[in-house]
Amino acid sequence: MPTLSEVITLAESTRVEDKKLFQSLLSELLPFTGNSFRLGISGPPGVGKSTLIENFGPVILRHFQKLAILAIDPSSQKSKGSILGDKTRMEKLSQNPSVFIRPTAAGNTLGGVARATREAILICEATGFDFIIVESVGVGQSEAELHQMTDFFLLLQLPGSGDELQGIKRGIMELADGIAITKAEGNNKPLAKKIAKDLQFALHLLTPSTNGWIPKVILVSSFSQEGLEELMQMLLDYQNWAYTTHWFEKKRKQQQVDWFHRSIQSFLLDFFYHTPECKEKVKELENKVLQQQISPSLAADQVIQTFFEKIKTHY
Amino acid sequence: MPTLSEVITLAESTRVEDKKLFQSLLSELLPFTGNSFRLGISGPPGVGKSTLIENFGPVILRHFQKLAILAIDPSSQKSKGSILGDKTRMEKLSQNPSVFIRPTAAGNTLGGVARATREAILICEATGFDFIIVESVGVGQSEAELHQMTDFFLLLQLPGSGDELQGIKRGIMELADGIAITKAEGNNKPLAKKIAKDLQFALHLLTPSTNGWIPKVILVSSFSQEGLEELMQMLLDYQNWAYTTHWFEKKRKQQQVDWFHRSIQSFLLDFFYHTPECKEKVKELENKVLQQQISPSLAADQVIQTFFEKIKTHY
Repeated sequence: MPTLSEVITLAESTRVEDKKLFQSLLSELLPFTGNSFRLGISGPPGVGKSTLIENFGPVILRHFQKLAILAIDPSSQKSKGSILGDKTRMEKLSQNPSVFIRPTAAGNTLGGVARATREAILICEATGFDFIIVESVGVGQSEAELHQMTDFFLLLQLPGSGDELQGIKRGIMELADGIAITKAEGNNKPLAKKIAKDLQFALHLLTPSTNGWIPKVILVSSFSQEGLEELMQMLLDYQNWAYTTHWFEKKRKQQQVDWFHRSIQSFLLDFFYHTPECKEKVKELENKVLQQQISPSLAADQVIQTFFEKIKTHY
Repeated sequence: MPTLSEVITLAESTRVEDKKLFQSLLSELLPFTGNSFRLGISGPPGVGKSTLIENFGPVILRHFQKLAILAIDPSSQKSKGSILGDKTRMEKLSQNPSVFIRPTAAGNTLGGVARATREAILICEATGFDFIIVESVGVGQSEAELHQMTDFFLLLQLPGSGDELQGIKRGIMELADGIAITKAEGNNKPLAKKIAKDLQFALHLLTPSTNGWIPKVILVSSFSQEGLEELMQMLLDYQNWAYTTHWFEKKRKQQQVDWFHRSIQSFLLDFFYHTPECKEKVKELENKVLQQQISPSLAADQVIQTFFEKIKTHY
């Protein structure tokens, strides 16, 4: 019987045989997946993600049986480092037998990491984890992926001036189902309150209530433990609301279908961009496009022809 | 010698021979393109886009020689109707010999429309138009496309309460280089001023100054003509800023390269989804995915296999 970690390692593997073995295993497990609350957490570096999770974990475990913490990290180099890093930063949690902590780092494409993380979620669910935190390092497109694979997207934000808030990346705030201002303690508190008010106002202006849930902004402190109960209550309220309105079911189904179509898209594009003849041709035509020697559309037509020729003759 | 309209019709054609003819013509014209200010205008229905353009056109023509107005309309049915519609709604402008008005409606995919519009921009530039307005009907993903093909993205917004502002679609506001509150006249004025202030605040919170340009919110009225000079000044300030900081050059180059890669992506996906065998297989597997009988990744693998088989045997 392989361990949970071993199965996830199999999910991360890029070897063809491993993939086949893993997919047949996953097919067996699929009927046992889906029974968890999936929480996505993102925020800028230094916001205190790990410390919050370390302190919030015990609160979660008063309401749920088993907690899994997965980290999305598109930089493959960090893999070994992160495992140690996360476990060190979440020292108490990592010693709790009801908690499983694991960063996902597969390949060097975000698509690869996202796939491995989604599959790690399913494996954790099949092995009885009923609360899953997916933590993102908050670079590039990872927030959109995180939003797409979780039930609730929590954005962490430091207390700071309006100018500092400009650091919120385009389109991220609108993904949030809730925002927590971290380190809202001591001298930070007045500023944190002001920022919370501003963000609540901006959310009010921006977020169309497509589903009816109104995102809240709350203050939390890992140091004083304030706000952790309130954070839990927000998640439970959401869960309750999402079940009764059938939003949960609807969102999960949509996520499954989206994942299918995103996979098609990323497989096609990965395959295209990893074909040496295409790579070469893209580089050559990119230059011509920049020199205005060829229109981008015509250039695209030409490189697609190269791709089809390659498939015809080599596969 | 074909007329400008005839060349754009050729650009919109989906016939293979037309495409070839057009591409060879475009190749000849490419060295003469790029010398215009490209203004994207979007906003919800009823915001007064056409009326604003009708009134703003003469202001533009005090600073530029020739004005082209192109409309993105992904609903192919509207094509004939829009031509008449736009010309009627812009009665004075449509009679001005320095003005060219034309909706673009090619095929029924947004990719097709975007391609035709981008190419219409190039043709207009090659024929001496130095100010080009691209107007979007503001549905679906068209704003992102509009932002991607223009130098300045102007968002129009009606004066309304905070609740009404919730209608601003996710991620749209963050694309704006400027926002104009329309119909800011008479009784509307106090409300318009309040909204302008709120939006300026939200922009301040949200827009990371990746390029250094700070988006402005201004009030305009087609009825009283107020704010039109200010709008022009904002565009001229932007142009001046964008030239001196080399942002203009940088943005245009990036847009060209992005267009190339987007074209590759949309050609590949269009081809995939228009292959009958793939369509059928996608439908079948989508159901299995929803029933949790197969993982989305494995389903994607299978349908890609079908696609490659098809290319191998039929092309």
